[in-house]
Amino acid sequence: MRCISCNGRYDAGTCKKCHEDLKKCHEDLKAKVAFLTTSQPDSFSDVVLFAADGGYAQAAVPVPAHKAVLVSRSPVFNAMLENEMEESLSGIIKIRDVSYGTLRAFVNYLYTAEVVCLDQQLACDLLVMAEKYQVHHLKDLCQKFLVANLNWENSFSTYTFVHQHNAKKIIEAALTLIIDNMDKLTAREEYDELKEKDPQLLFEIYEAYLSKQVNKAAAQKGSSASHPPKFNWGGMYFEDDDEVQDYD
Amino acid sequence: MRCISCNGRYDAGTCKKCHEDLKKCHEDLKAKVAFLTTSQPDSFSDVVLFAADGGYAQAAVPVPAHKAVLVSRSPVFNAMLENEMEESLSGIIKIRDVSYGTLRAFVNYLYTAEVVCLDQQLACDLLVMAEKYQVHHLKDLCQKFLVANLNWENSFSTYTFVHQHNAKKIIEAALTLIIDNMDKLTAREEYDELKEKDPQLLFEIYEAYLSKQVNKAAAQKGSSASHPPKFNWGGMYFEDDDEVQDYD
Repeated sequence: MRCISCNGRYDAGTCKKCHEDLKKCHEDLKAKVAFLTTSQPDSFSDVVLFAADGGYAQAAVPVPAHKAVLVSRSPVFNAMLENEMEESLSGIIKIRDVSYGTLRAFVNYLYTAEVVCLDQQLACDLLVMAEKYQVHHLKDLCQKFLVANLNWENSFSTYTFVHQHNAKKIIEAALTLIIDNMDKLTAREEYDELKEKDPQLLFEIYEAYLSKQVNKAAAQKGSSASHPPKFNWGGMYFEDDDEVQDYD
Repeated sequence: MRCISCNGRYDAGTCKKCHEDLKKCHEDLKAKVAFLTTSQPDSFSDVVLFAADGGYAQAAVPVPAHKAVLVSRSPVFNAMLENEMEESLSGIIKIRDVSYGTLRAFVNYLYTAEVVCLDQQLACDLLVMAEKYQVHHLKDLCQKFLVANLNWENSFSTYTFVHQHNAKKIIEAALTLIIDNMDKLTAREEYDELKEKDPQLLFEIYEAYLSKQVNKAAAQKGSSASHPPKFNWGGMYFEDDDEVQDYD
């Protein structure tokens, strides 16, 4: 049978009615998202955010917003604004160590649930902001983007970066990629740098690799079926099929 | 083949991958709607709405809201609030001829795109508000609800009600239902009432019925295939298959 959607042949799928019902719900949800998207964050704003790239010396450009939207999207803004802290009284929120572009994209996301022109750098910057302000929906989006765009070239930098931001999904994917290419590890530019700057991180890579090798050897001896793996690294067991599995 | 969704047999449909891709997008949209839904319209509100059931004598209960949300969802509120009219300056919007319950449901819809406990009466009341404030997304919802809940009992009252509110989809559906049961027309309680109160509306029903009968007769003589229908009513042509079709 041929699929009415992709025209490919298949032997398991859904009937036209179920597919069309889902498509109908999907269109309804799209209209709902469009309806709920607020296109004018500048209108009647009662708070402004300022980005501070390491200091407030330069004339910062304000990013207008609404307290109601900020508290609704982020528990951190909620605590800050509902409890009449300095920011709530002054209507000014200064955000350190972030560029104007990132702040603008972050605030825009709170109104639209969309990021225009997302790239590797912006995804990393927004991940940090999403983590800090507990905007889980945005954090998920950045994680998905970084995992989808992971390659051997950026695996090392992504791994070292996300390691500080509790982004488990990316850590696992990057580590798998690094371990699958261990033969090229010491030849990498970042290797010597990391040995100096963050030896612990390098040890974690080696330990994860070792765990995988030991489990592989055990599996080859036929003992893996009846015994649990002998090595594990940070809750992740490395198994024979070269896949990282999380048993937490 | 059996559908993996409803388990029914079918001979045309989509493959598992296409279905799962759509399901995935659907889940993403659901999360987006949840993210964009503002749950606290009371927080940091800068405007209050009052319902006025025919007068302002009674102590009205305020419904708090945000100008930014109102202008984003309704072009009427946008014109009212952006142009510094009385309502914008005072932060008070009085809405005549609406109950507190309807106003509360209306404002809640602007924040959540949902109506809790929608029934026939509320759907009619919200349709009027949606029409007045040009909230098309809500008007669509009310129209769909009223069409889905249309029956012989409420067809007459629904028809007379929506006739004043430019709700074309419901007018067509109600008229079809009435015309399909013309033999019971004069026996209806509302018939004599309508003859007195709104004879024009009754003439429209009769004219639509006549148009259908004439076209049916013409079709039976075998002339409908080569000639266009001779009668039409308000842009709607009544054809042989008893279906109302809109050719506008």
